[in-house]
Amino acid sequence: MERVKIGVIGAGRIGKIHIDNLLRLPQVEVAAIGDLFAGPELLAWAAQRGIHSVTQDASAVINHPDIAAIYICSSTDTHVPLITRAAQAGKHIFCEKPVSMDIAQTEEALQAVRRAGVQLQVGFNRRFDHNFKRVREHVLAGAIGEPHIVKITSRDPNPPHNDYIRASGGIFMDMMIHDFDIARYVCGSEVEEVYAQGGVLIDPVFAEHGDIDTAVVTLRFSNGALGVIDNSRRAVYGYDQRVEVFGTKGSVSIANDHPNTAELSTAEGIVREKPLYFFLERYSEAYMEETRIFVDCLVSGKPVPVDGGDGLQAERIASAAKLSHRLGRPVKLAEIGAQLEQASAGE
Amino acid sequence: MERVKIGVIGAGRIGKIHIDNLLRLPQVEVAAIGDLFAGPELLAWAAQRGIHSVTQDASAVINHPDIAAIYICSSTDTHVPLITRAAQAGKHIFCEKPVSMDIAQTEEALQAVRRAGVQLQVGFNRRFDHNFKRVREHVLAGAIGEPHIVKITSRDPNPPHNDYIRASGGIFMDMMIHDFDIARYVCGSEVEEVYAQGGVLIDPVFAEHGDIDTAVVTLRFSNGALGVIDNSRRAVYGYDQRVEVFGTKGSVSIANDHPNTAELSTAEGIVREKPLYFFLERYSEAYMEETRIFVDCLVSGKPVPVDGGDGLQAERIASAAKLSHRLGRPVKLAEIGAQLEQASAGE
Amino acid sequence: MERVKIGVIGAGRIGKIHIDNLLRLPQVEVAAIGDLFAGPELLAWAAQRGIHSVTQDASAVINHPDIAAIYICSSTDTHVPLITRAAQAGKHIFCEKPVSMDIAQTEEALQAVRRAGVQLQVGFNRRFDHNFKRVREHVLAGAIGEPHIVKITSRDPNPPHNDYIRASGGIFMDMMIHDFDIARYVCGSEVEEVYAQGGVLIDPVFAEHGDIDTAVVTLRFSNGALGVIDNSRRAVYGYDQRVEVFGTKGSVSIANDHPNTAELSTAEGIVREKPLYFFLERYSEAYMEETRIFVDCLVSGKPVPVDGGDGLQAERIASAAKLSHRLGRPVKLAEIGAQLEQASAGE
Amino acid sequence: MERVKIGVIGAGRIGKIHIDNLLRLPQVEVAAIGDLFAGPELLAWAAQRGIHSVTQDASAVINHPDIAAIYICSSTDTHVPLITRAAQAGKHIFCEKPVSMDIAQTEEALQAVRRAGVQLQVGFNRRFDHNFKRVREHVLAGAIGEPHIVKITSRDPNPPHNDYIRASGGIFMDMMIHDFDIARYVCGSEVEEVYAQGGVLIDPVFAEHGDIDTAVVTLRFSNGALGVIDNSRRAVYGYDQRVEVFGTKGSVSIANDHPNTAELSTAEGIVREKPLYFFLERYSEAYMEETRIFVDCLVSGKPVPVDGGDGLQAERIASAAKLSHRLGRPVKLAEIGAQLEQASAGE
Repeated sequence: MERVKIGVIGAGRIGKIHIDNLLRLPQVEVAAIGDLFAGPELLAWAAQRGIHSVTQDASAVINHPDIAAIYICSSTDTHVPLITRAAQAGKHIFCEKPVSMDIAQTEEALQAVRRAGVQLQVGFNRRFDHNFKRVREHVLAGAIGEPHIVKITSRDPNPPHNDYIRASGGIFMDMMIHDFDIARYVCGSEVEEVYAQGGVLIDPVFAEHGDIDTAVVTLRFSNGALGVIDNSRRAVYGYDQRVEVFGTKGSVSIANDHPNTAELSTAEGIVREKPLYFFLERYSEAYMEETRIFVDCLVSGKPVPVDGGDGLQAERIASAAKLSHRLGRPVKLAEIGAQLEQASAGE
Repeated sequence: MERVKIGVIGAGRIGKIHIDNLLRLPQVEVAAIGDLFAGPELLAWAAQRGIHSVTQDASAVINHPDIAAIYICSSTDTHVPLITRAAQAGKHIFCEKPVSMDIAQTEEALQAVRRAGVQLQVGFNRRFDHNFKRVREHVLAGAIGEPHIVKITSRDPNPPHNDYIRASGGIFMDMMIHDFDIARYVCGSEVEEVYAQGGVLIDPVFAEHGDIDTAVVTLRFSNGALGVIDNSRRAVYGYDQRVEVFGTKGSVSIANDHPNTAELSTAEGIVREKPLYFFLERYSEAYMEETRIFVDCLVSGKPVPVDGGDGLQAERIASAAKLSHRLGRPVKLAEIGAQLEQASAGE
Repeated sequence: MERVKIGVIGAGRIGKIHIDNLLRLPQVEVAAIGDLFAGPELLAWAAQRGIHSVTQDASAVINHPDIAAIYICSSTDTHVPLITRAAQAGKHIFCEKPVSMDIAQTEEALQAVRRAGVQLQVGFNRRFDHNFKRVREHVLAGAIGEPHIVKITSRDPNPPHNDYIRASGGIFMDMMIHDFDIARYVCGSEVEEVYAQGGVLIDPVFAEHGDIDTAVVTLRFSNGALGVIDNSRRAVYGYDQRVEVFGTKGSVSIANDHPNTAELSTAEGIVREKPLYFFLERYSEAYMEETRIFVDCLVSGKPVPVDGGDGLQAERIASAAKLSHRLGRPVKLAEIGAQLEQASAGE
Repeated sequence: MERVKIGVIGAGRIGKIHIDNLLRLPQVEVAAIGDLFAGPELLAWAAQRGIHSVTQDASAVINHPDIAAIYICSSTDTHVPLITRAAQAGKHIFCEKPVSMDIAQTEEALQAVRRAGVQLQVGFNRRFDHNFKRVREHVLAGAIGEPHIVKITSRDPNPPHNDYIRASGGIFMDMMIHDFDIARYVCGSEVEEVYAQGGVLIDPVFAEHGDIDTAVVTLRFSNGALGVIDNSRRAVYGYDQRVEVFGTKGSVSIANDHPNTAELSTAEGIVREKPLYFFLERYSEAYMEETRIFVDCLVSGKPVPVDGGDGLQAERIASAAKLSHRLGRPVKLAEIGAQLEQASAGE
């Protein structure tokens, strides 16, 4: 069996996770790593894994004749040009979320993908998680009937550092974008209207960046269902990732994953451990799974399960939420982008 | 020990529950029952309990010289006149929720209460429930730090019948009013702004009455916290009553009560029973407790724990939610009542 | 409706519970209380409840011509003579467990009951508990198929005081006797063999009384099922009352009841409260229910659900466990009582 | 870094798992596979993994000069000779459980290991499981004080096939041996006495092999604690793996692992999924972890965490249980082996 050759651009924390996962697939070869800051440390790290082609030049990876697909794990601002170039080079693409923070640019990238006829999978890893998948399966199987209410709780254990916040695109585009995607995924319907409330309740640093750290967003889906998402940048008990879908025939909900099932009963109470700490612990299997499936699609030619359209739609909802929060009123998805530009103009 | 004599007006389902609970208190005598539709059946029911004064005339109960307090359990439209007359007669009052569906009328009733210097407890029974109380205690004790997000789920197992819907005042005033009260109770802060979404997803009969059957309402509290309440008129798995308060130091949440803890593991899965069916089962102890405490306050002269002001505040939030739903925009509590009247005028 | 008149002998803690429960039944009148130590305090307590006949003379209660049934709640050593006299007086009997600590005497009492044709219900309150009942129902309904393994955990929050231990009859006759009854009840089969292990692990005071404080007993049922019961006199986290029945089609298990469902998530972990403290809290509804059903049987003439034979059988298992522990080998139920006497002889 | 070369003998189901886990460790090279039945299929399977040395001759693996350690995953009857030869060849050894079914032979193997000064780790994989480890940690940390009662439930989803049963050594040596090891592990004390009850309740085929399919075994530990283990060869709801340790300061217990946390609430009840199906699913991470730690010990020279003495002790308890079941009385560990031989003689 000839192995699929894959190049990875951006070998930071998430890039390295993807590389290690790719290495566990016998049908894959990680043929090259491109990272702007590649140095001795990365070279050594790669060599340990039998990867000897490491470069600072993304073009060398993209244009490598043997490489069939590119993982784009570099900073968000580089996604659109890299997608565009990779598509033009005829490579399939896996891109971390979000594609970009600008609807128009994202659309531009998707057009390049369409024109080139390549595949683009967006890194909405939660869709590949055992719990979220099970919710979706139950909804699709009709176990809860028609969905009426979708509730998503998504809270991080700790705020990101200052630099991250500044470049993050804000809570809606950086953090809640996962939940917007999950909302569509578990409800099986498109979001039509958004109302966003939020505040700076944890750390004033968010205000300095024009961002917020706590948000509650309600959704109206095209099938009539209502939704609500709550986000917090700091849940001291750990990463809180829960979903509930309620419908005509019942409800399906998922609880958090815990490091073990041990329960300690003492004179003080009954105690179990906090949830798995953060996304690396919580979604380690989901990251593996999304890569396994991406590679399966490459090999078989089947369409990828989360494509550029899904990436775009989540970004549109995030933009609507951002606008709603600024204007203090519900915003229809139909208002994005015209309204967006107008709104930007008034800023 | 002289027993406190109490009169009960309205001996329907909820009135009978209050009577049976009053009879379990050794320091109480149920001295008279007034019910517009009193007939042989009610006379027999009362006689079995040693109550021999049953009348169709509420005034006879209110003006009974030995009676110290009146339970008002008749239909909502009678609450304000009965409160007013009972107050004028110098009786303490326990009144079922809501006091009325009109802020101005409720204020009028409260004024009568204040003028008479009597006590008025409003029947927000959930405050006396073991679970909700525990949430409140944890929040007050600072166990979760400053509250940031309040989430309330409240779903009935089945819609009420047609006649009930017509006179109910709508989902916000009839059903979610309990949740508005609980929101204030567990957050320890006042609601300042409301945004209400809703739809008719269960039964078109709600639309016929200008009502909805499914609603998601977001709240903004004066301490900066955000809140969300979801209501459904039909959860096929039973009465769903959950609350979560999330804050700087953690989160406290309550799950539903179940008829037993039995778990059946078979080849099909792990099954436990649905929650307690409806409010009579779920809150039977809370009804007892609210009456026990009301009587304690009567005897000791201590102020009742849920007074007319609490009743009024919940009604104001319900009115704001109703208005928000009609206007499709967030409504500040400060807009109620001026806006309310204006809005009504425009209807 | 004429009310059933009931006399209560022994108005200690458990007697008072039965009296208060009897008072909640409209078809019952507590006509007299007999207590060896009746004094002003008991008189006042009874008067508050409208009971004005309080005596130190049990005979006066037993022979009271209007009284139809006697509750025997006095110390265990008085049970057999009181049952005998009450039966001879033609009264139905509710007797606290155990009937006695001596199989021969218990059989004597049961003979008196049979001869008199009265009913005798033994106070195995757990059979009326919502959880244990549900286990039994599932087993009877065939939900778990043929039972193979029965597991019972039963631990007290705190050891009884010294005087109680001395007169208790030991852990098997005083505490585990409930579990022996539940084992028969949930398995639907008789115990044929017992092996008892135990030790003094909590407090040497148990050794002083020839007793133990921790025990693990295995059972063999006549249907081939195996069982195990563990008892401890001190579980610092509270009253631990669990059962599991495992069979060909699955398993049914019950968890403890808790005062509320609140769960507190903090940086330290996820905490919920300890189980309900002890039998008074845990089984308050079960006590009510056993009395309600006893009275129903009196009124309807139906046979009581836990009769003298059940009391005897549990005592026989307890005796076998005691013997097994002394001899360090499994003991067949068939060995009780010949073996018992022989063993006693050798002591 | 030079990689540790490891040879694997026996490439059946469990051998393949160990090979795949070894391949995930960058510091390891699987240098050779020895399997009596090695054929084209195994050659292809190995080649896919880059292993090109596959032989039917175990000696070639054992005597391979570059190989530092041997995994023995062949049938139980080959363990003792292979351990002996591997030890004589100066190789470190990982051996699947049990070392053998005969105490004397196991002792012989351990002596060879001691003489050669090599390490021997026995495959008690559950010690490396997240749940069991946590129980142990809590007990060691004193969180539950002095252990008083240890309860272990261990039930397989389905009986093994006929051939397996015949050669298995019986339920105590094949299945409960894991629980005997866990009992020592979580209690932190040695077993001194065993009483075993059991029966053929699932399938008469067990009786044909002189085996049983359901067993309840009680233990007495040298620290005074009592224990109980229940085993069933068929739990229709899946692999049931639970432990509870109860002591002076409380209790720690573990529940089963489930494939996800989804809970479905419908008109029929609240349902979640069955536990992970069997040991391959349930302990996949534990298998990885035991290999990771074995290799760490090889590299660092630290002693392995589960050595031959642990293997021997579990076998001694299994032998005692077997004997107890045959004799129908408790058996002290001190009786094994003299008694064993005597008992065997009488068979």
